[in-house]
Amino acid sequence: MNESGTDAAPDASPEGGRGAAASAPTGLSRRGLLGLAIGGGVAGLAVGAGAGLAGGVALGRARATEDARTAYDFFGGHQAGITTPVQEHLHFASFDMMPRTDRDDLISLLQDWTYASARMTQGLDVSATGAVGGSAEEPPDDTGEAQGLSAAGLTITFGFGPGLFENEDGDRYGISAQRPADLERLPAFLGDDLDPEASHGDLCIQACADDPQVAVHAIRNLSRIAFGRARLRWSQLGFGKTSRTTAAQATPRNLFGFKDGTANILADDTAALDEHVWVGASDEPSWMTGGSYLVARKIAMLIETWDRVRLSEQDTIIGRDKGEGAPLSGGTELTRPDFAGSAIDENSHVRLAHPEQNDGIRILRRGYNYVDGNNALGRLDAGLFFLSYQRDPAQFITLQKRLSTDRLNEYIRHVGSGIWAIPPGASAGSYIGADLFA
Amino acid sequence: MNESGTDAAPDASPEGGRGAAASAPTGLSRRGLLGLAIGGGVAGLAVGAGAGLAGGVALGRARATEDARTAYDFFGGHQAGITTPVQEHLHFASFDMMPRTDRDDLISLLQDWTYASARMTQGLDVSATGAVGGSAEEPPDDTGEAQGLSAAGLTITFGFGPGLFENEDGDRYGISAQRPADLERLPAFLGDDLDPEASHGDLCIQACADDPQVAVHAIRNLSRIAFGRARLRWSQLGFGKTSRTTAAQATPRNLFGFKDGTANILADDTAALDEHVWVGASDEPSWMTGGSYLVARKIAMLIETWDRVRLSEQDTIIGRDKGEGAPLSGGTELTRPDFAGSAIDENSHVRLAHPEQNDGIRILRRGYNYVDGNNALGRLDAGLFFLSYQRDPAQFITLQKRLSTDRLNEYIRHVGSGIWAIPPGASAGSYIGADLFA
Repeated sequence: MNESGTDAAPDASPEGGRGAAASAPTGLSRRGLLGLAIGGGVAGLAVGAGAGLAGGVALGRARATEDARTAYDFFGGHQAGITTPVQEHLHFASFDMMPRTDRDDLISLLQDWTYASARMTQGLDVSATGAVGGSAEEPPDDTGEAQGLSAAGLTITFGFGPGLFENEDGDRYGISAQRPADLERLPAFLGDDLDPEASHGDLCIQACADDPQVAVHAIRNLSRIAFGRARLRWSQLGFGKTSRTTAAQATPRNLFGFKDGTANILADDTAALDEHVWVGASDEPSWMTGGSYLVARKIAMLIETWDRVRLSEQDTIIGRDKGEGAPLSGGTELTRPDFAGSAIDENSHVRLAHPEQNDGIRILRRGYNYVDGNNALGRLDAGLFFLSYQRDPAQFITLQKRLSTDRLNEYIRHVGSGIWAIPPGASAGSYIGADLFA
Repeated sequence: MNESGTDAAPDASPEGGRGAAASAPTGLSRRGLLGLAIGGGVAGLAVGAGAGLAGGVALGRARATEDARTAYDFFGGHQAGITTPVQEHLHFASFDMMPRTDRDDLISLLQDWTYASARMTQGLDVSATGAVGGSAEEPPDDTGEAQGLSAAGLTITFGFGPGLFENEDGDRYGISAQRPADLERLPAFLGDDLDPEASHGDLCIQACADDPQVAVHAIRNLSRIAFGRARLRWSQLGFGKTSRTTAAQATPRNLFGFKDGTANILADDTAALDEHVWVGASDEPSWMTGGSYLVARKIAMLIETWDRVRLSEQDTIIGRDKGEGAPLSGGTELTRPDFAGSAIDENSHVRLAHPEQNDGIRILRRGYNYVDGNNALGRLDAGLFFLSYQRDPAQFITLQKRLSTDRLNEYIRHVGSGIWAIPPGASAGSYIGADLFA
């Protein structure tokens, strides 16, 4: 994915196609349009589907009126939003397919989502007529709250949950044979206290942006487009990224006040990405080549309890000092921890989680802090919405099992969980997950 | 309040007092410190209370390591956070006093909150030892997640609810005689569907900042300091400001996709502020001179329903066009609406709410959008967290009654409500609300 500056976003002109292909979505499907128009009296508004647009994504006027900030390409070999420099805000959504939907519904949904996402990531409305350019006698295609806002670094990343391939209703979409062998609900971990209504889902969308209104706008409009085909199961807002994916980004702090993600895989470490994050050409199934696996864990933090722990004990539990983030064996934040001595507690978080203590297993973390108001006791309902990308779900499972003796467990509860196969990026002119249906 | 740039925040040096006064808090009270230390085994850590600090707020090392962004003075004639250019993020919190607290508890709480707020608004930790500078054998004074972040334009604004002056337990703090006559729970309005657990409260704190982590850090630490004296009743995060308070700010959009707050009172319109927002010297009670009254309304928006309304009907309901925000009587956004003709519907929002239709009543709006995940039907739990400041609660009440026939009511529900007296700003060396206890 490219970081395009003010003179980028070349496709933002009305003429800008993205390379035509016979199968490219040229607008929203009739089904997607039905979602937009239902209740307005007329189904099937022709959106940006002029005959002159032979393929690719039909683009209308750019939405941003002020600065054209960072815009990332939606199309590419990998999906954006994984190694992209972590944006400030997250809106994550999980969806279930609606009853009695079929393979064509799923394909048309993915085509519609691709079409709308390719536009929104360039700072455009979901269709050429958008928020205010259509017929006054129809509901607008776009909900309009992002008018005047730039792309704000928006990335939209799609995933397929285990239930999409097969669930209690069977192989609804004729894709169970393509299910990755390791794509199944995560095993129960010690201390899990999962809320099923904040867990799992047939599909997921991770929307990240530097403006929360842009991320919310994306999830809202993609939910709307899904009408009749998929329904929002749960969603989560996050802020204050807790990981970094480039060396230029300072290591952020989680709500325990500690730097988090110091040892994360960075976007320019292509060897590590190939080894630990991207599904390789030799891996199965082949439609996942260039993809990844996403694990989401909603981790509630008992912050009031934590806040009463003395500083030295906090440091011991983490295995790093709170100020600089240096390992307790000495040095600075980026110094390699020395696990040979006794400076780093046996059950400290850093010792249990570190690659050196786990046969070199690494994951790419991309989590966010969250605050969902407070509970009846007047305590903030807050924590970490953990997101990690890995080449194989086993990486996360191995690490999480290892954390069973983590001293940090006294101060956290895992309350939500999900896993999704993240297909590779869509080619220009195609759609997300197309190879799954080839 | 001043907007201080990179060379401002003069008090950020360890020597920087703010003008000594005998009554000035020089650190957190023993009670506040107890809140920090409880569970750590030692109560009463001496925080920043060196004898050399004769008064004012004792300040330690600046927290920001990178750019020193906007910092607003906490002290002044009016509280900051009212006419301050609206920041990007909100964390609003309502508190109830704990049972069996007395007048001294309330005063010490306000002193502690003043001390910590004066520091945090300058990008400092809550005390001189802060997140990592204290004894390793104590819990840190500051929770630490804002280390490395600047002040980010943080403002912290305090308010006193009707129940603080008198409730079913009587006049707990000896201040019922000072209660403003109009400070009482708002009357029931048509269509109210209030959740008591998201309404009311003895005290409120509005924290606004351009970084959500900074706003959350402020509320979290102020809640912590309140230990044993006040308890969080409810809190709300918001984003994407829906009003502007300076002409330089573009009018933002609410989640219905319309510009909101076009006719707001701006910070440089001192005549309008004096007439409509600030309590005057001739108003009662005298301790409120320079203060204001804050109304908060959590307004859920039925966005999926709204999104199915045709564009012309949306325009009619609002009375403005969705694209530019111009009144339907013609012109551009800032054109004065012409209510004489029939272009603007009799029950449109703009006609019912406009000052010209309400004997010139104006309010200063400062609301934010919110998204609290979604409900069981898969609909986003989203809307507007409305905040308005006015010289007299009657201004809001009159306007809200007038909106009883608003066509917008079909698409919104008021689910939370609160009113607070906003005392004037604290003088340097004093504390918020001091005149109430004089």
